[in-house]
Amino acid sequence: MTDKERLAWAYLSRVVEPPCPTLARLVDAVGPIEAAGMVRSGGVDVDLRDRTLARRDLDCAAEDLETLDRRGGRLVTPVDDEWPTLAFRAFESEKAQKRPGGWAPLVLWVLGPQRLDEVAMRAAAIVGTRAATSYGEHVAADLASGLVERDVAVVSGGAFGIDGAAHRAALAAEGCTVAVLAGGVDVFYPSGHSALLHRIASAGLIVSEYAPGIRPARHRFLTRNRLVAVLSGATVVVEAGLRSGAANTAAWAEALGRVRCAVPGPVTSAASAGCHALLRSGAQLVSRSDEIVEIVGRMGELAEDPVHPQTPLDQLTDAERVVFEAMPGRGVATVEQIGVNAAMPPQRVLGPLAMLELAGLISRVDGGWQLVRKPSGT
Amino acid sequence: MTDKERLAWAYLSRVVEPPCPTLARLVDAVGPIEAAGMVRSGGVDVDLRDRTLARRDLDCAAEDLETLDRRGGRLVTPVDDEWPTLAFRAFESEKAQKRPGGWAPLVLWVLGPQRLDEVAMRAAAIVGTRAATSYGEHVAADLASGLVERDVAVVSGGAFGIDGAAHRAALAAEGCTVAVLAGGVDVFYPSGHSALLHRIASAGLIVSEYAPGIRPARHRFLTRNRLVAVLSGATVVVEAGLRSGAANTAAWAEALGRVRCAVPGPVTSAASAGCHALLRSGAQLVSRSDEIVEIVGRMGELAEDPVHPQTPLDQLTDAERVVFEAMPGRGVATVEQIGVNAAMPPQRVLGPLAMLELAGLISRVDGGWQLVRKPSGT
Repeated sequence: MTDKERLAWAYLSRVVEPPCPTLARLVDAVGPIEAAGMVRSGGVDVDLRDRTLARRDLDCAAEDLETLDRRGGRLVTPVDDEWPTLAFRAFESEKAQKRPGGWAPLVLWVLGPQRLDEVAMRAAAIVGTRAATSYGEHVAADLASGLVERDVAVVSGGAFGIDGAAHRAALAAEGCTVAVLAGGVDVFYPSGHSALLHRIASAGLIVSEYAPGIRPARHRFLTRNRLVAVLSGATVVVEAGLRSGAANTAAWAEALGRVRCAVPGPVTSAASAGCHALLRSGAQLVSRSDEIVEIVGRMGELAEDPVHPQTPLDQLTDAERVVFEAMPGRGVATVEQIGVNAAMPPQRVLGPLAMLELAGLISRVDGGWQLVRKPSGT
Repeated sequence: MTDKERLAWAYLSRVVEPPCPTLARLVDAVGPIEAAGMVRSGGVDVDLRDRTLARRDLDCAAEDLETLDRRGGRLVTPVDDEWPTLAFRAFESEKAQKRPGGWAPLVLWVLGPQRLDEVAMRAAAIVGTRAATSYGEHVAADLASGLVERDVAVVSGGAFGIDGAAHRAALAAEGCTVAVLAGGVDVFYPSGHSALLHRIASAGLIVSEYAPGIRPARHRFLTRNRLVAVLSGATVVVEAGLRSGAANTAAWAEALGRVRCAVPGPVTSAASAGCHALLRSGAQLVSRSDEIVEIVGRMGELAEDPVHPQTPLDQLTDAERVVFEAMPGRGVATVEQIGVNAAMPPQRVLGPLAMLELAGLISRVDGGWQLVRKPSGT
């Protein structure tokens, strides 16, 4: 890419409030340099003129790129190999375009050593409330470390609470984590997460569609959420109140053909109420990272079934079980008594009694049978 | 019903291990007295002869009825008005009959002042593990008292843990509760729940298909579970391990065309693992008693939507919201600056600014606009 093209992309990135499909189509048709010229001169259709009027004379593309370069970042555009073309195909669906803002970004400002397109091939979003409980933070961390151990990148929004717990656990397990910001990549927000975001920038990825210096704002968080969802095969809400940004990310996931997941919690916890509402509306329940890997992973990566406790009685036939249950808890019973208890003719009881003896569950004594007592604890 | 008929029903109740559809069909065809005579003399088909051989000479019908009378109980048969005919229609489905034991009981032994058929019209089962946590017991009690407040009877199995918490809370709220036992109605099991079961017998219902004196046994718990499920419009599992009787009751509920529900809990709690497995396999998530009433109640009894917190910003239009977000957190901004932040032409910003002023969110100052600071806590 020439410097001139790069400057044009940077200018276009800031001149509208993203996403703006009209501008994206113009750039697609005439290229970034000519598109920038047309916007600057007002030679565009009335909608785009309106949307660019306020900022078209404000050209700080050179400074923005300098800021980016100083931080070792890069501008990733649709013509770059790193552009997550496959993931962004989700924006072509009618369902995505029906949601306000359901469009691909024009460009992405990126910091960090990972390749975004590769990361997006195998990633899951772990999101949730800033007002997380220790339960929620524990589960977020547990899921995140389980994911990166299986080479799944953890995408989140860099916020306090669940997001932070997920990023931190992914870093601690030396895995890849991606923070998608609602402001410029030089505006580390919240400032209390500045150190965390610096660590993410040096090990994972910081991604934003906003030019440097742009402050996060409420509507930008909602717009940002669609990028968290689209870069991930599944969005897992760990804790969320009934009104939460995480539910918005989950809604994006659904609109974008991704899997919506939620972690249950105590029904007495307001921090889980949003998760339970999601589960009631069809989100998938996840309780272990394996279940997420199964969704975002390669075909055939199935979660192991939880281990069901086994007892020696599992091996018995129905008749053996009925006879076993018909044994008195204490003392000795005759074959006839066992038959009455089991409601089975005595001659039908003999076979099962022999099998139960072989299994070590009962023993023959003078005149009848008794249960074998096991030492307690086995 | 004549005494002779009553004695015949009681004899038949004990002579096989229930449920036994062959015997039920015979009684249906020839009546209880003749059926009892045929069984006693062995004049029945080979299958039924086999199933009755061990107990056919053991006639303690008179003693059983005396025991029942002494406790003020009654034998409820398919010819009685109290027989829950409607509920038991569920056993006619192919899905029910495919499950081993999926048949209606022959008779029911009943204690307590309520009418079983009426109770079954509006009842929910609250079941779960004996090894309940305080969370599980709290939720079971909370759901049970919410149900009886809305005139829904609480059905359970009388066990320690979740069952006991549900029964107790229903009684405490002066509601109707039903304990279905896996042994005779005079064998209060577990003995530690003897006082509780006495209270249920005097305010609600104790129900069993087993004759007096019959001890609970493992296979009887499983058979009993189908009655818990069939007498309830929904079966709610509050806490259950991965291997639990409550999951068996839920499976009965599904086979019988009832609604399977489960309460979520912390994913870190083994006592909730069975609930989460149920939820992953399609059980309905419930977190409040209203949601259960909606399932078992009369048509149109809808649970209220959870209250979503509201803020003054909810009333804003999209343009007003964007302008509001474009206001600087501190200090004064000109219309032009706000336009740049919002990416809107200045003349489009004026309308939203005026509306925001009316809403008391911003105020006009010399040369521009500023946010109105609210006292914290509002």
